[in-house]
Amino acid sequence: MTQHTVKAYGDELDQLTAEVARMGGLAEAQVADAIDSVARRDVALGRSVVERDARLDALQREIEKKAIRLIALRQPVASDLRRTLSSMKLATDLERTGDLAKNIAKRGLILAEGDPMQPLTRSIERMGKLVSMRLRDVLDAYAAGEIERAVAVWNTDDEVDEHYNSLFRELLTYMMGDPRTIGACTHLLFMAKNLERIGDHATNIAETIYYEITGQEFTGERPRWNPDTAEDIPEPPADDA
Amino acid sequence: MTQHTVKAYGDELDQLTAEVARMGGLAEAQVADAIDSVARRDVALGRSVVERDARLDALQREIEKKAIRLIALRQPVASDLRRTLSSMKLATDLERTGDLAKNIAKRGLILAEGDPMQPLTRSIERMGKLVSMRLRDVLDAYAAGEIERAVAVWNTDDEVDEHYNSLFRELLTYMMGDPRTIGACTHLLFMAKNLERIGDHATNIAETIYYEITGQEFTGERPRWNPDTAEDIPEPPADDA
Repeated sequence: MTQHTVKAYGDELDQLTAEVARMGGLAEAQVADAIDSVARRDVALGRSVVERDARLDALQREIEKKAIRLIALRQPVASDLRRTLSSMKLATDLERTGDLAKNIAKRGLILAEGDPMQPLTRSIERMGKLVSMRLRDVLDAYAAGEIERAVAVWNTDDEVDEHYNSLFRELLTYMMGDPRTIGACTHLLFMAKNLERIGDHATNIAETIYYEITGQEFTGERPRWNPDTAEDIPEPPADDA
Repeated sequence: MTQHTVKAYGDELDQLTAEVARMGGLAEAQVADAIDSVARRDVALGRSVVERDARLDALQREIEKKAIRLIALRQPVASDLRRTLSSMKLATDLERTGDLAKNIAKRGLILAEGDPMQPLTRSIERMGKLVSMRLRDVLDAYAAGEIERAVAVWNTDDEVDEHYNSLFRELLTYMMGDPRTIGACTHLLFMAKNLERIGDHATNIAETIYYEITGQEFTGERPRWNPDTAEDIPEPPADDA
């Protein structure tokens, strides 16, 4: 390999990481804007979240293509291979995160046509802020290559579940109290579920960072909802549970 | 490379494909059993679906490890590399499919403690059969390497969405008619959403098969829910829309 080739190879890897980081920034903004659009009933913002999602889809395809090309032409091994494969995994999680943000914004656009649903939308906003924070933290951990920070995000997974469960009960109570709100509450219910899923993707990202840095699979047991201790209408865990 | 090494390399690739196919069979069974457990209020079956999910998680980790090892040691290119990367992608979709089946079974266990929710559970069963069929078809396409069959599954994506939307309205009407059923109906609502997501994973699998065989990205436009033509309480598309 000539010095030039070696340099270009390193550049390609750095570029891949940089694009994942960039995609992370966009996904983080999409989630924050989606939540704001719901909380403020901001139709213009909601629409722009929906439109901007295509950008994340394109970035994911680009990152995947570059990673495959890099594997085929450079045949990376060890940490370089982990870094390349991780970039594909992270891009997938970030693309899904964007999809979920888009879906939240879409539901927000529908809710904006009806009555304000406060305090319910405030509860969504609170849960949204918590999830956004976890996403931001794990992306910081990625950018800084700080494994402890990634593990810290992983360990706070249950906070989101607790938030989701109480929000779920709040919505159920509201629906039972006023059946005319069932349609709107159903959208809020799915928004909460989408936020929970975004939290799960933050957890996946933490696991991928752990793998990329250590080469080991993260073996911790993720906190789980326990059917035996569940209340009358328990909410099973996120769909990945 | 000695003849032996070459043979071993081919064996490794074949084994990877075989394990993905096996994982597909298990995921297919999990989905079918989850639906049956709900339709028949079969608690024993529901519990076994929940327990068997760990098998799929283990298989995915195994397939991923083998694929990474193969890339690192064999440095496959062209169609071999596509096949290796596809096996990782397919394993991820099948693992998620298993998670969703497990979640459906968990909700079924909760519903089994309450009143029978027919005809709603029958509607879930109908949608479940449709989704199971698509999953079976796309796995057949994978086993047979038949691209047309994979594309056919891809093209019927909207059937599931239509099914979901009518089921969504049916559940909403039911809840409004009898608010005491809201808790149970919410579980059915998430079951329907989980089935829709399983349908999306079948679509992803079809796209991965297309990529593995052709080396090209599938460029067709997926049918989408259109907010402008939506009814009063429209149901936004699957969370990936």
